[in-house]
Amino acid sequence: MTTAEQPTPRKKTGRRPGGADTRRTVLEAARAEFAARGYEKAGMRAIARAAGVDAALLHHYFGSKDRLFMAALEFPVEPKAVVELVLAGDRATVGVRLAEFLLGLWEQPGVLDRMLALLRAAATTEQVAQLMREFVQEELVRRAAAELGLDQPELRTELMLSQVIGLAMARYVIGVEPLASASREELLPLLAPTFQGYLGGA
Amino acid sequence: MTTAEQPTPRKKTGRRPGGADTRRTVLEAARAEFAARGYEKAGMRAIARAAGVDAALLHHYFGSKDRLFMAALEFPVEPKAVVELVLAGDRATVGVRLAEFLLGLWEQPGVLDRMLALLRAAATTEQVAQLMREFVQEELVRRAAAELGLDQPELRTELMLSQVIGLAMARYVIGVEPLASASREELLPLLAPTFQGYLGGA
Repeated sequence: MTTAEQPTPRKKTGRRPGGADTRRTVLEAARAEFAARGYEKAGMRAIARAAGVDAALLHHYFGSKDRLFMAALEFPVEPKAVVELVLAGDRATVGVRLAEFLLGLWEQPGVLDRMLALLRAAATTEQVAQLMREFVQEELVRRAAAELGLDQPELRTELMLSQVIGLAMARYVIGVEPLASASREELLPLLAPTFQGYLGGA
Repeated sequence: MTTAEQPTPRKKTGRRPGGADTRRTVLEAARAEFAARGYEKAGMRAIARAAGVDAALLHHYFGSKDRLFMAALEFPVEPKAVVELVLAGDRATVGVRLAEFLLGLWEQPGVLDRMLALLRAAATTEQVAQLMREFVQEELVRRAAAELGLDQPELRTELMLSQVIGLAMARYVIGVEPLASASREELLPLLAPTFQGYLGGA
């Protein structure tokens, strides 16, 4: 699964020895711009200007606004990838596929910690909640809705997301047992029908 | 629906003009005891002692440890009531019943605010998370598991709870649209099958 940890430059030119500093400066400028203007209104050019770098360089390193956002907020999963891998595939097995994807993703080093950090920040800071809201609506819900082709595709996608968020909270933040220690094999048959119901149009 | 806001004294005797102060003192002592010793180990007698009141008076006003806990933490819903009203009834319609109960509960003044305050506190303070964990396990999960009579009743109850928590987070904290503005009528047919799947043994 792709994560947003690294900027994944299209090629390494080695021309910029100050790359790490530049990256840090860019991410700081991005966080400031997203915080000040929200996800929708934040501009790549404004971020480049604030960071004192060329807009072309910004695109070279981060590709697009969603990737820059994910890097700046250490967003652990790329919505595009979820839509392509999970939602755009065979509808009859979307529930199992999503449950497998999610439970596997959380076992990858760092992914869960970053997701929980974002949830905590959103739960306590309205500004972060608003950024998450705009990002999720633009990058996940709109894309998923286009793929689903069911009635109320946005509501269904968001209910799926609400189960993901709640599972993370109950299993990892509150940590109720036996949920906290349940294996992937135990959770999969219980979670898959929920996701299937929301996304499969059962 | 009962809430834990008021101590629901068995009868009003009018003999204690300092009742409000006593109540405040008791709740402070309770919070300190729960924080120091956790839900399971906290003792009614220790709380009475710390508050300088008679243990009999504590029982008179709060009845039992779970009620005192709910009052001290302003817990918005009594697990016993959920189990009795929702889970102990006809299994074939448990999903609809729970979805209706929950969506109605959140529309009652103050209930949602208190639930979100607890979720925020649990998300940021491990001590609160631990209290919630112990309380939920003892008062909700154990009771519900006894009623359900399905395989993995505790895991199923906790997955149901995870959907409730996630729905509150996505709908009210992050506030993604259209979920945030969706009506009870829109949500009910999508949520009920999820709860039915977890609790109905579908």
